[in-house]
Amino acid sequence: MINKLPNWLNAKGNESDIVISSRVRLARNVDNLLFPHRMTAEDKDKLIDSIGETISSSSFRKETGEMKLLKLDELSGLDREFLLEKHLISLNMLDNYHNRGIVLGLDESISILINEEDHFRIQSFFSGLNLKDALVIADRVDDALEKFYSYAYHEKYGYLTSCPTNIGTGVRFSVMMHLPALSMTGGLKDIQRSLKSDGFVIRGFFGEGSEGYGSLYQISNQFTIGVKEDEIMLGLEKRINEVIVKEKKSRETLFKQKTYEMQDIIYRAYGNLKYSVLLTTKEGMNNVSLIRLGVERGLTFDEHIDYKQLNSLIVLAQPAGLQSYFGKSMSPEERERHRPRLFKEILKIGG
Amino acid sequence: MINKLPNWLNAKGNESDIVISSRVRLARNVDNLLFPHRMTAEDKDKLIDSIGETISSSSFRKETGEMKLLKLDELSGLDREFLLEKHLISLNMLDNYHNRGIVLGLDESISILINEEDHFRIQSFFSGLNLKDALVIADRVDDALEKFYSYAYHEKYGYLTSCPTNIGTGVRFSVMMHLPALSMTGGLKDIQRSLKSDGFVIRGFFGEGSEGYGSLYQISNQFTIGVKEDEIMLGLEKRINEVIVKEKKSRETLFKQKTYEMQDIIYRAYGNLKYSVLLTTKEGMNNVSLIRLGVERGLTFDEHIDYKQLNSLIVLAQPAGLQSYFGKSMSPEERERHRPRLFKEILKIGG
Repeated sequence: MINKLPNWLNAKGNESDIVISSRVRLARNVDNLLFPHRMTAEDKDKLIDSIGETISSSSFRKETGEMKLLKLDELSGLDREFLLEKHLISLNMLDNYHNRGIVLGLDESISILINEEDHFRIQSFFSGLNLKDALVIADRVDDALEKFYSYAYHEKYGYLTSCPTNIGTGVRFSVMMHLPALSMTGGLKDIQRSLKSDGFVIRGFFGEGSEGYGSLYQISNQFTIGVKEDEIMLGLEKRINEVIVKEKKSRETLFKQKTYEMQDIIYRAYGNLKYSVLLTTKEGMNNVSLIRLGVERGLTFDEHIDYKQLNSLIVLAQPAGLQSYFGKSMSPEERERHRPRLFKEILKIGG
Repeated sequence: MINKLPNWLNAKGNESDIVISSRVRLARNVDNLLFPHRMTAEDKDKLIDSIGETISSSSFRKETGEMKLLKLDELSGLDREFLLEKHLISLNMLDNYHNRGIVLGLDESISILINEEDHFRIQSFFSGLNLKDALVIADRVDDALEKFYSYAYHEKYGYLTSCPTNIGTGVRFSVMMHLPALSMTGGLKDIQRSLKSDGFVIRGFFGEGSEGYGSLYQISNQFTIGVKEDEIMLGLEKRINEVIVKEKKSRETLFKQKTYEMQDIIYRAYGNLKYSVLLTTKEGMNNVSLIRLGVERGLTFDEHIDYKQLNSLIVLAQPAGLQSYFGKSMSPEERERHRPRLFKEILKIGG
């Protein structure tokens, strides 16, 4: 069972009070192969085996550090789900896991998906706001791979990808943010509109329709063609910084105008985690969100609570994360009963 | 400021896990006086002064113990409200307090309202289920009064009262019960119907429309004519015992079928009281109700909690009770902010 927590949850990066993580994803395809959805199972397996050899070669390792290959067919359903919850694989890949693989760096901050929509999807995660370093690391893996594979590349269009929206640089930057004050005050709607008109998109962290769930949002670029990587990155970074300023301002206003109300909902959230006997992921995440806001605003709790603890719950409170934490498979009812213990243990609150 | 808690909240009587208190009220009028709503202010004051003399006479005191007279005109609005919250005076008396008085025994378990709907309303409260002793005490005061006043009494109809529903014995028995399980499972509706057809009525403790508020209900007889005191009392007692059995059965079923759900809402209620920063009377009462249910079911909390503490909150959580507890007048907003402290102090829960 995979039970490691990814390094990008450690809350050590820039703006960690509001930005959970930064992520860069590069879509790449091998020149002389059909796109994955047209490949035979045999060809897919061949590519996976080839990658297995590549990452064990010393010249590749010198660039990327030690990495290991996991074949999704060989993992348990729970392990695959946990990969999804850690945002390492997509929902599509969870549902169609045959002949697919993932290459993982030791701290899971770097990974390569094999035979998802594209042959390779290089992913690099960093804690806090740090797209630049995430890109440097992703580029390093990209360069290392290119020494072993000839990429599908067009002089005019750039990298060729399975889905047209990824053609060009093939890069997607995304930043996961905690925006409770903008959620509460409704300020997100304006931001959403303005981001959209500039080619960026904001989504709930847990995918479409999960808006407001723990007040976690990811903002990413929508297009990759006709613009340079650096420009996309700087454009997004500028936007993220604007959202940070707005979120902080909203927090200040909220706490100034509704001092007691805010303290009330935050401390009650703590009380709920401490005394609940049954807890859903959603309620858990929403309580974590409120406590995170409280920590940032300087509220103190019975026990010291830091961002790292709270971040780890973003992943561990999910169904597979919870089962991974307790090291056993559980029914939904059992999960609801065990989840309070997870929160109490991670946040070191008795009860 | 009156800040004493009535003795009937001490949870020492029979069936104290479900029955908060028993109450007997006798309506009496003086023979040669108009009913209060037709009396002049002067005559009302005369009756009050006369009662003042009566209760200070040694022959009266010998029967009833020491009592003191409070003229409602001379009390602060807050004190009058606190009398209402302690169920010592009626809402009607709070609104029209001029030339009215209340005679209070030392532990407030015995009292006489002067110039409410009737000249005298003798009230006797006991903790738990104990209508018999409550009646004995009320009768003792009744007998003592009769030595000083000639009652309006009709051979055929019995005691004459201002409102026809009280004619006859002039007695009303009421029992305050905590019925959370019957509230949750909807079992109260059947009980209500069946009680009504037998001349009894069930109401929310805080009057019409307060059903479900803290799951406190009072059951009383509706008519007083054509039946002997004892018959009414025994009939009501029988009904109360039936309701107790049904409530206990409902609790057992609930805790058997929804073990975790019940624990969850009960411990969360405790957490809410412990961590809230703002608290309304209603939410406070509902949390107290859940904790009371938990105590009865043997759940343990961080600190030992007993019925007496919980009962006292029934009165202290009310607006005037709260202000009386803190010894100062407060705005509704201040009360909401102070109420969590009251609950924490009474239940001895830190936070």
